[in-house]
Amino acid sequence: MIFLVDHFFEGKELLNRIPIRGKDKLIFADVTYEPKTTYVDKIAQSLKDEFGKVSGVIGIGGGSTLDLAKGVSLMMNNPGSSADYQGWDLVKVPGVYKAGIPTLSGTGAEVSRTTVLTGPTRKLGMNSDFTPFDQIVLDPQLTANVPANQRFYTGMDCYIHCIESLQGTYLNEFSKSYGEKALQLCQKIFVEKDHWDDESDEQLMMASYAGGMSIAYSQVGVAHAVSYGLSYLLGTKHGIGNCIVFDKLEEFYPAGVEEFKKMIEKNKIDIPQNITAGLSDDDFDKMINVSLGMKPLWENALGKSWEKQMTRDKLRKLYERL
Amino acid sequence: MIFLVDHFFEGKELLNRIPIRGKDKLIFADVTYEPKTTYVDKIAQSLKDEFGKVSGVIGIGGGSTLDLAKGVSLMMNNPGSSADYQGWDLVKVPGVYKAGIPTLSGTGAEVSRTTVLTGPTRKLGMNSDFTPFDQIVLDPQLTANVPANQRFYTGMDCYIHCIESLQGTYLNEFSKSYGEKALQLCQKIFVEKDHWDDESDEQLMMASYAGGMSIAYSQVGVAHAVSYGLSYLLGTKHGIGNCIVFDKLEEFYPAGVEEFKKMIEKNKIDIPQNITAGLSDDDFDKMINVSLGMKPLWENALGKSWEKQMTRDKLRKLYERL
Repeated sequence: MIFLVDHFFEGKELLNRIPIRGKDKLIFADVTYEPKTTYVDKIAQSLKDEFGKVSGVIGIGGGSTLDLAKGVSLMMNNPGSSADYQGWDLVKVPGVYKAGIPTLSGTGAEVSRTTVLTGPTRKLGMNSDFTPFDQIVLDPQLTANVPANQRFYTGMDCYIHCIESLQGTYLNEFSKSYGEKALQLCQKIFVEKDHWDDESDEQLMMASYAGGMSIAYSQVGVAHAVSYGLSYLLGTKHGIGNCIVFDKLEEFYPAGVEEFKKMIEKNKIDIPQNITAGLSDDDFDKMINVSLGMKPLWENALGKSWEKQMTRDKLRKLYERL
Repeated sequence: MIFLVDHFFEGKELLNRIPIRGKDKLIFADVTYEPKTTYVDKIAQSLKDEFGKVSGVIGIGGGSTLDLAKGVSLMMNNPGSSADYQGWDLVKVPGVYKAGIPTLSGTGAEVSRTTVLTGPTRKLGMNSDFTPFDQIVLDPQLTANVPANQRFYTGMDCYIHCIESLQGTYLNEFSKSYGEKALQLCQKIFVEKDHWDDESDEQLMMASYAGGMSIAYSQVGVAHAVSYGLSYLLGTKHGIGNCIVFDKLEEFYPAGVEEFKKMIEKNKIDIPQNITAGLSDDDFDKMINVSLGMKPLWENALGKSWEKQMTRDKLRKLYERL
């Protein structure tokens, strides 16, 4: 069994709780940057070289580590590079057994059917029915010491999932019931409550899970489509990237953005501004290409005729405001 | 692949939608009475006699049919009688692949970790990690023509699951978030809304699913413990049995019972009264024995010292009121 653990935990007490036995191996995942297809391929290849086959991969960490674990599991059994499978339903063979143990709440990576990876030409996940974990462990104690800023950025990923799912054209009753519950929990934690306690950790963990379940059968929307371009070019991390973008989406999600601004104020969070200042035309084109490649996200957000509404020109203006 | 279909659908249009191929077999499940261990054993044995092994069992129907399908799947791979596995975590070997397609909403059998079976000495499920379905299909169109009374009784099974889970001592944040969502959906459908439409079918289907998820990691309570005794002796069906019992549980669930009575009135439902009139001491003893055997249910409802609170005498008085 391969334990893929967020490098944040190197030397930390959590390691004593991991039951390494026999030929089990612990690998620290370097998530300084969000996971790249080259990194997934490298870990999978090194495991094949060392063991031939493995019994399973257990990811312990935030969304990046969980996505890495899902990717490595799939690439133990699928030929080629993980970059070949960036897209929807390109994976044809199940991976090895995989389990996820989140130590950050919000991304929903513990239940999503994707692994968000930066590849040679795009930032896009291996979206497939074979991508979700076989088992997950939800232990809110593991999220107890996350710094408040990080907690907020990742928590807002969940909040934004809900808004994008609930206002999307792909919505169905399954996604709706999960999205409503996750939204309600986010509001309880970030709007209504005046302090952070163990219950907040528990509720944010369930919000993350429910938000992930909501988008598993619907789709995310404008904030994700735009922030993927940002991450691709500038390496902006997913949580904060979503916040930077969502902050400017009053045209698409007026009520959500209004509440989001309240949460920023109440929780005393700084959202970086002017991060695209000074970028070249070529840079903007790269971001626009990555973003407009996320067709299902745009279709979910704006309907079948989304291309008429979101032109390259309009998207450029949006990127310039970030 | 074995399709186990509620006998209600004999001659109905639904059969045309079942993609029978090759050596697939369709079996109509006789659910005139709730499933018995002898019936599970009989179906499993006949499949072994005819095919040796099967690829999987797909249950299509209400809670009884789904529980039958789960039981048959398990008994294809486990020795002895299903009665040997009535209890908690007695099943040690996974069953064959199993899928569930509910045609009634409320029981949560599509996601529960039990199969409620009437055996030689008890009414109790095969509760185990191997019991849940591998896959489920939620299609609210399949529930569109359920008669209003039946829909209410089965829907109330879900409502009661939520109350028992949310007020139970086993509650955790996972069960709570699902229980709250299911309860909210039930209230929307049965309290707030004035008519029944497609959205009601969709929402009751999600309520059933969420209610089932809620008790999967917590437990049910007094209404279920008492109604199991009723079903065991009198064959009272689960949905209506729960209603008969819950109607008299104001001592344990005051707010829930009050709202339940409102829903009965609003939806113009008759709850049978005096169904235990004329029973012998021996009959009452049988019901009390079955009921008090459900230790986890009582412990969830009343805490560790439940035996001091729910004496045989007190339970007898409760049964006499039904």
